[in-house]
Amino acid sequence: MEDTEFQALYALKMRECEEVLARYLPEAKGEQKTLLEAMNYSLLAGGKRLRPILMRETFRMLGGRGRVIEPFMAAMEMIHTYSLVHDDLPAMDNDEMRRGKHTTWYVYGDAMGILAGDGLLNYAFETAMKGFDFAEKKEDEPAQAKVYRYRAVADALRTLAEKAGIYRMIGGQALDVESEKKQYPLSESQLIFVHKHKTAALIEGSMMVGAILAGGSEKTVERIAECAEKIGIAFQIQDDILDVEGDSAELGKNTGSDEKDHKSTYVTIHGMEKAKADVEQLSREARQILSQIRGDHEFLEQLVLWLIDRRF
Amino acid sequence: MEDTEFQALYALKMRECEEVLARYLPEAKGEQKTLLEAMNYSLLAGGKRLRPILMRETFRMLGGRGRVIEPFMAAMEMIHTYSLVHDDLPAMDNDEMRRGKHTTWYVYGDAMGILAGDGLLNYAFETAMKGFDFAEKKEDEPAQAKVYRYRAVADALRTLAEKAGIYRMIGGQALDVESEKKQYPLSESQLIFVHKHKTAALIEGSMMVGAILAGGSEKTVERIAECAEKIGIAFQIQDDILDVEGDSAELGKNTGSDEKDHKSTYVTIHGMEKAKADVEQLSREARQILSQIRGDHEFLEQLVLWLIDRRF
Repeated sequence: MEDTEFQALYALKMRECEEVLARYLPEAKGEQKTLLEAMNYSLLAGGKRLRPILMRETFRMLGGRGRVIEPFMAAMEMIHTYSLVHDDLPAMDNDEMRRGKHTTWYVYGDAMGILAGDGLLNYAFETAMKGFDFAEKKEDEPAQAKVYRYRAVADALRTLAEKAGIYRMIGGQALDVESEKKQYPLSESQLIFVHKHKTAALIEGSMMVGAILAGGSEKTVERIAECAEKIGIAFQIQDDILDVEGDSAELGKNTGSDEKDHKSTYVTIHGMEKAKADVEQLSREARQILSQIRGDHEFLEQLVLWLIDRRF
Repeated sequence: MEDTEFQALYALKMRECEEVLARYLPEAKGEQKTLLEAMNYSLLAGGKRLRPILMRETFRMLGGRGRVIEPFMAAMEMIHTYSLVHDDLPAMDNDEMRRGKHTTWYVYGDAMGILAGDGLLNYAFETAMKGFDFAEKKEDEPAQAKVYRYRAVADALRTLAEKAGIYRMIGGQALDVESEKKQYPLSESQLIFVHKHKTAALIEGSMMVGAILAGGSEKTVERIAECAEKIGIAFQIQDDILDVEGDSAELGKNTGSDEKDHKSTYVTIHGMEKAKADVEQLSREARQILSQIRGDHEFLEQLVLWLIDRRF
């Protein structure tokens, strides 16, 4: 696949994702209108929609059919968005800009920023639970088939909650914030903990939910989790690289912020050369796992390649 | 039942609840230890445990058996606790004390306060999802029986998420915060919206989850929801009354804060006399619904009565 062809395909899949998301957005009306507006503002402020795309493409690659994946795609993007909204708060990173736009708290005030994040997290679960509507969709199906569907939706829900939770994403975020607030740099092993938890967890969750809802075997789900962890860590190292070498206009945020904040990053600990080599290595390993899976894995492999070359 | 007898029974049920909660607490260890400590600090800072008690007693009244209720009891208390933790933040109500103890952000800093709240909300759903373990507990059960169990747990989960969410608890909280920050007093209808949403929603959710997991019919669940809404509103009006007449030492927080903050309350809008009469009326109606339900409703009726006389 040519690079321009891939770009066009990715843009198409982004639009697909945004259409799904639009169907699950809360309508901004009623006494809590400002809250709902703040949530929609955050969700529609752009972004690569990487997580729902990874989820749906994994689902497709493994032969998944139907629309049960859609509430989970929207839910995952809501969880990712809430984590950014809370991350940007004055009490946390105090960021005024993200993706070239003002952050949620900057527009709506920090009390509403906290509540919009809470709202997104809670609504993510409400949304994902709509997956249960698909469990009993076919009334005349034998009970055992319904049990299989319930089990898959329940597993997908548990995976979503676990990866977003205190032993994964929030856990990584907590260590990151603590080291910043107390101004001690992360050790090498702590940095890997943060990368694995803060970033890789949702990417893992996205691909695993896709695999589970496609009816993948336990072994397949495990292989997908392994692959996703490699993608997630490579993605975060690439972020560290871009903070040094990237173009702030294209990124929509200031570069050099890690250095300014005296943060440990993969680049400060291991040097630029090793950082780049490790991204390449992880990407190669991830693509190898994908290539061994039966199904059309071309788009996902291309996506992994592109994640290395991205400049935004 | 004598009042002292009721008090002793309530204390017993509180201990029961706290034992359940203790089984679902995250162990404070690992790289994210501070986060887990902050969560446990918040969960163990006392409180009446009213919501899980209402949940379990409704479950019992309707003939519910087994332990499927327990993860939901813990989850509900986690959701209630996260809402207090975020409510107390400097960017929200800026409260340093609650229940006679320092608030979570005051002890752990406000960044960790935000994350502890996020952690509690996410972990609440992780915990409630353990309810699915009970759906397939009996392997040799016919598939249709498993479908019934899955359906009940899924319904209970959806109820939990909905009542805690943007159309109920968070929605009420958002309107309340907005009126405070923009310093306009709530109108009569807005105040009722806040009371119904911010406070009554979790009480409704608690009793409804109890009814759903006990296998109550749709009609029974509806009646319970009606009853719970009355209890929830009466409970919040009573809070407004105690803010004027209560003893700050017994309450563990300062009284007179609503007046100081120029907040609209049920008392400022309707006067003390009507506030008290309405609490009595709502309580009577709630007890009437309970008395019509088959099952042992004595404890719950007594609990409703006690909620009116409470001084803390």
